[in-house]
Amino acid sequence: MKQIDVCLTPDLLHLHTIENTIVVVADVFRATSCMVTAFAYGVKSIIPVATVDECRQWQERGFLAAAERNARKVEGFELDNSPFTYMDEQIRGADVAMTTTNGTLAITRSRGAVKVLVGSFLNLDAIARYLKTEPYDVMVLCAGWKGRVNMEDTLFAGALIDRLKESYAMAEDSVIMAWRLYGQGKDNLPSYLSNSSHIRRLQRLGIQKDITYCLQHDLYDVVPVLRGNALVSMEV
Amino acid sequence: MKQIDVCLTPDLLHLHTIENTIVVVADVFRATSCMVTAFAYGVKSIIPVATVDECRQWQERGFLAAAERNARKVEGFELDNSPFTYMDEQIRGADVAMTTTNGTLAITRSRGAVKVLVGSFLNLDAIARYLKTEPYDVMVLCAGWKGRVNMEDTLFAGALIDRLKESYAMAEDSVIMAWRLYGQGKDNLPSYLSNSSHIRRLQRLGIQKDITYCLQHDLYDVVPVLRGNALVSMEV
Repeated sequence: MKQIDVCLTPDLLHLHTIENTIVVVADVFRATSCMVTAFAYGVKSIIPVATVDECRQWQERGFLAAAERNARKVEGFELDNSPFTYMDEQIRGADVAMTTTNGTLAITRSRGAVKVLVGSFLNLDAIARYLKTEPYDVMVLCAGWKGRVNMEDTLFAGALIDRLKESYAMAEDSVIMAWRLYGQGKDNLPSYLSNSSHIRRLQRLGIQKDITYCLQHDLYDVVPVLRGNALVSMEV
Repeated sequence: MKQIDVCLTPDLLHLHTIENTIVVVADVFRATSCMVTAFAYGVKSIIPVATVDECRQWQERGFLAAAERNARKVEGFELDNSPFTYMDEQIRGADVAMTTTNGTLAITRSRGAVKVLVGSFLNLDAIARYLKTEPYDVMVLCAGWKGRVNMEDTLFAGALIDRLKESYAMAEDSVIMAWRLYGQGKDNLPSYLSNSSHIRRLQRLGIQKDITYCLQHDLYDVVPVLRGNALVSMEV
């Protein structure tokens, strides 16, 4: 039986072997929700980069640039880290360079995996259906917050486990924990998340609308995958 | 308001500052449950050591020696890692040297804290009452399993949070997660834990009796604290 594992933060990645595994990276608030939305609206590719400087270099070569640090947009860039900025005709066919606090780091650290997919509640069903067609074990890598675990990415892991639990064995306690938390919160995720640290951080920035949007399940039939240094939308 | 934080595994300790904090180390199955039982039965001191060799050296100097690796007793030592071996008149007044897979490591890594306490369900109430008398923030350090998070230590953290939640602010999402899991499981912890990885590992070793024992709440009015290189029982 295939296994599903959860790595609750990139700071625990050293405990996992990913060579024969498909990694699903989740940074639900908001990097991976933005990426999924961008592909749903026709973006051609997204290069996740580690630094704002690197992002600027891609911008100079004609890419649209998206940068966020500490949940705020960086000056001089076309796109910010709200998924709503990607709901725009002008991004159809565009190549985007994106750097975020936690999400891009999690993606670049997963390069050793069989495949690296981008997950969010928005494309949960598409990811689950795709994984079932693959023979490989799965690991959800929660992007967390500066190394710490967070609730929203753990809940995404739990949601994916819930969709896969008939066909995958649960590898470790982190899997059971994520699944149990999702089971407890799934009927009202916004309320369940209301006292989490990142929600409080985001609410201070006035982006309640983004939060509500990012928690919607199964909006888009999109599976972003890392090819070389760029994410592209997989035909599934 | 004082804060309570949870570090889900020693491999995430680098994210936490513990200089102005009281650390409560939990390795519920079974190191910290053994330590609490030992003090309840009159042990004078316990030196947690990192290696089996070091444990042997203390044994040669007249200490009782307790060593476990991979949940099994090490040959040639008086005590094993079942709490029941500590329920014995012969240990009254004894000095013990103990090494375990995860628990002693978590204790030795916490030396920079204001105080290092040893927690388990067995002395939950004693720990909670003591902490309320102190002005410091609290962090529960879950010993985990070889760096990975585990369910039982996370549930202990949740139980302590539940006892302290009126007088402490929850620092991070790990605190909320531990507290929520405990809330979900507390009415039947043995069943809630039944598919966790460590329970399965221990059940293979036939120590169901130990598991049931270690999940009992508030058996002993004992607060072990690290003084120098040894744990002693605090008068509270």
